[in-house]
Amino acid sequence: MTFPAPLTGVVPPVCTPLTEEGEVDVPSLLRLVEHLVEGGVHGLFVLGSTSEAAYLTDRQRRQVVEAVVGHVGGQLPVLAGAIDMATARVLDHVEAVTKAGAQAVVVTAPFYARAAHPAEIARHYRRIAEAGPVPVVAYDIPVSVPTRLPAALVLELAAEGVLAGLKDSSGDLAGFREVVTGARKDPATAAFSVLTGSEVIMDAALAVGADGAVPGFANVDPHGYVRLYRLARAGDWDGARAEQDRLCGLFGMTRVGDPARMGPGSSALGAFKTALHLRGVIDCPATADPQIPLSPEETARVRTFLADAGLL
Amino acid sequence: MTFPAPLTGVVPPVCTPLTEEGEVDVPSLLRLVEHLVEGGVHGLFVLGSTSEAAYLTDRQRRQVVEAVVGHVGGQLPVLAGAIDMATARVLDHVEAVTKAGAQAVVVTAPFYARAAHPAEIARHYRRIAEAGPVPVVAYDIPVSVPTRLPAALVLELAAEGVLAGLKDSSGDLAGFREVVTGARKDPATAAFSVLTGSEVIMDAALAVGADGAVPGFANVDPHGYVRLYRLARAGDWDGARAEQDRLCGLFGMTRVGDPARMGPGSSALGAFKTALHLRGVIDCPATADPQIPLSPEETARVRTFLADAGLL
Amino acid sequence: MTFPAPLTGVVPPVCTPLTEEGEVDVPSLLRLVEHLVEGGVHGLFVLGSTSEAAYLTDRQRRQVVEAVVGHVGGQLPVLAGAIDMATARVLDHVEAVTKAGAQAVVVTAPFYARAAHPAEIARHYRRIAEAGPVPVVAYDIPVSVPTRLPAALVLELAAEGVLAGLKDSSGDLAGFREVVTGARKDPATAAFSVLTGSEVIMDAALAVGADGAVPGFANVDPHGYVRLYRLARAGDWDGARAEQDRLCGLFGMTRVGDPARMGPGSSALGAFKTALHLRGVIDCPATADPQIPLSPEETARVRTFLADAGLL
Amino acid sequence: MTFPAPLTGVVPPVCTPLTEEGEVDVPSLLRLVEHLVEGGVHGLFVLGSTSEAAYLTDRQRRQVVEAVVGHVGGQLPVLAGAIDMATARVLDHVEAVTKAGAQAVVVTAPFYARAAHPAEIARHYRRIAEAGPVPVVAYDIPVSVPTRLPAALVLELAAEGVLAGLKDSSGDLAGFREVVTGARKDPATAAFSVLTGSEVIMDAALAVGADGAVPGFANVDPHGYVRLYRLARAGDWDGARAEQDRLCGLFGMTRVGDPARMGPGSSALGAFKTALHLRGVIDCPATADPQIPLSPEETARVRTFLADAGLL
Repeated sequence: MTFPAPLTGVVPPVCTPLTEEGEVDVPSLLRLVEHLVEGGVHGLFVLGSTSEAAYLTDRQRRQVVEAVVGHVGGQLPVLAGAIDMATARVLDHVEAVTKAGAQAVVVTAPFYARAAHPAEIARHYRRIAEAGPVPVVAYDIPVSVPTRLPAALVLELAAEGVLAGLKDSSGDLAGFREVVTGARKDPATAAFSVLTGSEVIMDAALAVGADGAVPGFANVDPHGYVRLYRLARAGDWDGARAEQDRLCGLFGMTRVGDPARMGPGSSALGAFKTALHLRGVIDCPATADPQIPLSPEETARVRTFLADAGLL
Repeated sequence: MTFPAPLTGVVPPVCTPLTEEGEVDVPSLLRLVEHLVEGGVHGLFVLGSTSEAAYLTDRQRRQVVEAVVGHVGGQLPVLAGAIDMATARVLDHVEAVTKAGAQAVVVTAPFYARAAHPAEIARHYRRIAEAGPVPVVAYDIPVSVPTRLPAALVLELAAEGVLAGLKDSSGDLAGFREVVTGARKDPATAAFSVLTGSEVIMDAALAVGADGAVPGFANVDPHGYVRLYRLARAGDWDGARAEQDRLCGLFGMTRVGDPARMGPGSSALGAFKTALHLRGVIDCPATADPQIPLSPEETARVRTFLADAGLL
Repeated sequence: MTFPAPLTGVVPPVCTPLTEEGEVDVPSLLRLVEHLVEGGVHGLFVLGSTSEAAYLTDRQRRQVVEAVVGHVGGQLPVLAGAIDMATARVLDHVEAVTKAGAQAVVVTAPFYARAAHPAEIARHYRRIAEAGPVPVVAYDIPVSVPTRLPAALVLELAAEGVLAGLKDSSGDLAGFREVVTGARKDPATAAFSVLTGSEVIMDAALAVGADGAVPGFANVDPHGYVRLYRLARAGDWDGARAEQDRLCGLFGMTRVGDPARMGPGSSALGAFKTALHLRGVIDCPATADPQIPLSPEETARVRTFLADAGLL
Repeated sequence: MTFPAPLTGVVPPVCTPLTEEGEVDVPSLLRLVEHLVEGGVHGLFVLGSTSEAAYLTDRQRRQVVEAVVGHVGGQLPVLAGAIDMATARVLDHVEAVTKAGAQAVVVTAPFYARAAHPAEIARHYRRIAEAGPVPVVAYDIPVSVPTRLPAALVLELAAEGVLAGLKDSSGDLAGFREVVTGARKDPATAAFSVLTGSEVIMDAALAVGADGAVPGFANVDPHGYVRLYRLARAGDWDGARAEQDRLCGLFGMTRVGDPARMGPGSSALGAFKTALHLRGVIDCPATADPQIPLSPEETARVRTFLADAGLL
């Protein structure tokens, strides 16, 4: 299939189910993909932050792309993260994931590396676009990569054809709007795809003109996010808001983890995977080291959230 | 050779010379190692931040460790960075670098990954120490990894035998002192090695009790840093301060890069490699993508710094 | 007049016109108030950040409140900032502004003072509410006060009756939504007023349920912000978005200042006051020391923005 | 007396004893001043961060300066903080404290105000120096004022005669050294005073060339800090380090406060005042609102620290 330009709709970052031993659980992964496809999603994003890409070895990353691409076989666009510290390392991942069949790559600014100047970020994306065989989507996720992607730079690289889209997980709707509005004004960026990574202000992002969303929490309730997308597309903003408010309530499960025992990442990914486990989608709720697993009490609280939402 | 416990002295993070094409220039790398050994250094740290580890592919990283270990052949302790985002990826690097002969590994807290809780950091280091065959040195470098390593946690992991040392590149001498003092008080941590990563307050770090230093700028002037170390060890603090002040002046070269064109990382690493090139140690001053190269004018300023210091 | 509960609508933070000598220009201030009242605003907020409260002396602050309260004489609710570092100093301002006639006070978390723990923030607001004769609106403005106000804490203090509202200038719509949704769920907080401080995502804030907005840029185009508010209240979200997009374009004037010469604050406040001067509302575009004034070229660019918008 | 140029020695920021009702306890304040003078300190700094300047009203600030200046009557230089958000407000404090007899003022970069550009900071200090009748000491305290004072800017303003000194509470010894070294190189800045605000690396700051120190913890043990200063001046660096290490151990009392109940500021200032109370210097350990008081258990731990140090 041709990669859509612009990419639109709900494109969840796919969780990576693991076994107790920390290996990729491929059958669970494929069941999760089925669960998302049945939910009506418009694409799949593997090896993103929600996929625990930072925690997976190169071998495991390859396994994930091959399994998912092999399974959806051209039904849906599959994007893959090529998450690494700087240009050459990213290019190795680009090669690996495109060889495995990914149709676009998602790439952050350099991190760890001290290369946060706009000229350095531009050079990074230009090198990757030159060398890479597939569209490049920029990924702005300050919780993981402190270097922000300035709107002006994103639009410049979009107009040059270096970037095919932006996944914005910053929560900064004002900056997001700047990119959306800028891209709409210029025919050179008409096909540029502006996607929000937020689970809790997706309605607002669509209202300001987003092409779509990459909500991690859609792993747990894909139907909800697809419904929200359709309501927004139909111009039913009150309906969209009501659905979003419902999802925001459910999203409260990401805070079940005791902050005395774990950080917010362990809590959120633990809740995602626990919910998928309780819903019968995946076999084991394990998250990768060094994340801290949810306790039985915390697991019970996730169950209550699901039960209250009629998702059990 | 047995890895020293504690590791002491000047252990420079070795720059990685590159060709114009961005490949590791092994002959230049070995000349650089010779230059350092002749300078009197007490160990070598490959694949650190100054080595551009974040920019090198896995293949290039392997090349570096193999070349350096093969060359120094047990004369000097060789530590290698195992720099990656989370536990499983770090363990892959630990395996690679120890197979290539590194005698200790240097490991940061998780980054990109959201795992900054003390319990998550502790789990990270414990897993790596359990699985790894060599001593683990913790690496606190907030300019690259925002998660700081609290003194109390470092001392706890040291007492457990999980950590063999700390390389502290935070510039926070008060926190550094806390670790030094804490480690000296407890017989269980008598062999724990506390190393500063600072090039400009190494005299102060030694005065508060550091075992040694890992100064990136020692690539350019190893004799100076070794002299400084010896003066400090001899209790000649005024002499040590004078040598440090001289090195601080020379270190001004790291700021030659125009901030309108590049970030401080491009400027500093560009100056290191340009100086090594001008001193005839390496063949090419290239830094890895997406760093911005120094201009001819900036190169000329590096030359002036060297000339004024009698290093040409 | 009774202070409305909840406060709703467009409540601009009123700029403080200054003379060339840096004194409050009361006639210009009253013309600005007229301009806002004619624009249809629903209240006035004096001594906020946009009012340069941080730059005004206590004498000047008093002058501002007295002039504005004296002029609007109960026509419109007048809120006043009581912006200072910690509890006792804030209470002195509360006393001064309420004596001068302000009907509510707007108070941040402590700053400069190291008192950022939730227990310390709660104690701060409780003391102020106990001692103060008027409703207290919390002010979350991370660009000025790094300590954020957690949603749970705001809701707790709202339910206690300590806080009458929140002005959120964080730009973090997800956190804002949490407060809105939380306040709506609890009868105890039915009259709690949730106001956005954003000029560029006011439509989105209203869509998620904000009671109103405190947009600094409404000084320049009050009619636009009032129109936007009315469209949103009428449920015409497409109309609201179009008006917001128009205002966002105009808001581009806040970036005319050359970043080599000044920071973003000098640029934004300089543009506000220059626009008010060019529109004939105030006599002099001066901003308070140590802000840097706009150059003639930068002033010309503000004029172009206004001309293109038909505001000259 | 003439204000010394450069100011040297131990110049403690004087705590402000309060009554249970939160008023300045002048008799205790004067006993504290006596305690410091007997300890051998070389100057006094009132209305600094340790003095809770951020928490004191203008009336209380005036009371403090008048009491202290009246008491020491020209025996010792008295500096006073003029801590406020921007230029005009600072100038009001400068007037108040100099009228009350302070011989120099200590001034931070603007805060809350968005004026962090070097050109804005320079304008701030130039205005204050022009208008003010006494020497101006710049105050770099990132824990309270996020805007750092770049070394190059400090040296430029020093050479211009705008600044008479720097109090650096950043803990960044590398930046501190840059100022010290830069000031020593230029005859125009020979009388510029570079003071560290650190309690725990004062020996290191003196070793790199500091003129003196402004250690908050000297309230509790002035004799220790004076001893440390003399040892350093005598070139007995090992003795200085031993004294500093002893003081660092005692300084552990600043962490007695339970982090579940309070922030680090409440804990540190609470410990200072509790120690002064237990030592019989001040009548009441109360800290200003909204700080959280130490519990009886926490107070007992402070007592143990003092007892172990022979300070009871």
